[in-house]
Amino acid sequence: MTTATAKTANESQIRQLVEDWTKALRAKDIDALMADYASEFVAFELAPPLRYGADAYRNMNKEWLTTFKGPVGSEMRDLSITAGGDVAFCHCRHRISGARTDGEQTDLWLRVTVDFRKIAGRWKVTHEHASVPFYMDGSMRAAIDLKP
Amino acid sequence: MTTATAKTANESQIRQLVEDWTKALRAKDIDALMADYASEFVAFELAPPLRYGADAYRNMNKEWLTTFKGPVGSEMRDLSITAGGDVAFCHCRHRISGARTDGEQTDLWLRVTVDFRKIAGRWKVTHEHASVPFYMDGSMRAAIDLKP
Repeated sequence: MTTATAKTANESQIRQLVEDWTKALRAKDIDALMADYASEFVAFELAPPLRYGADAYRNMNKEWLTTFKGPVGSEMRDLSITAGGDVAFCHCRHRISGARTDGEQTDLWLRVTVDFRKIAGRWKVTHEHASVPFYMDGSMRAAIDLKP
Repeated sequence: MTTATAKTANESQIRQLVEDWTKALRAKDIDALMADYASEFVAFELAPPLRYGADAYRNMNKEWLTTFKGPVGSEMRDLSITAGGDVAFCHCRHRISGARTDGEQTDLWLRVTVDFRKIAGRWKVTHEHASVPFYMDGSMRAAIDLKP
């Protein structure tokens, strides 16, 4: 393969991983969601603490997914993918929506950055950063009502 | 260079960029801070909106830096760098501290993820994501009091 062809192939592989991840999220399938996560995975998430390892991330998400009545709604805006030979990253704004078991309706735009490393010939997620900004007006409230 | 040597050289170059960035932050020098930012740069920051382009990021930071009386305190914990041939990323927990012009004292741990691309032989920052989590206890307050 030429360098340009390899670059396109790597970008397509990352795009496929993101699509698979989205399907797993909608289906609330934690095993499929984390199928391509490296053991060294580190996450910065919406809820404290400041940092999660792979096991803590799995437990947190497994519990969170049970709080949705039906499927989880997922929509991505401006997904940008940059892939080298064995290091890649992507980022987007991500809308999470759906009815919760407590009767609430979630509809939230967040920002997501995901970093990948090719390990033994397969792309793996080694880092994820998901967040919302906060209002610096004295309230210090999380800005969960923003639209892209 | 062998692949392993090139990898180490790239990691060292990224580490140097992070060190230069830290010095620029401490010195409140916006031009030095953004010396290695690509024009395509996209940021996800502590304050709304959800996303900043390079110009909006510069204006926001330029103003923010003037709110510190003296130098900005900067401390990084667990800086992790992954560098390929032309794509790289790093992440850490980052402490920002210092006396503000309004009399307040800032001392805040946040999470930072930075993505790089080698453009015309030089590493450039193409994406940055900085955030704190928030308390999901009804207050929805930004968690600005967390320690690593």
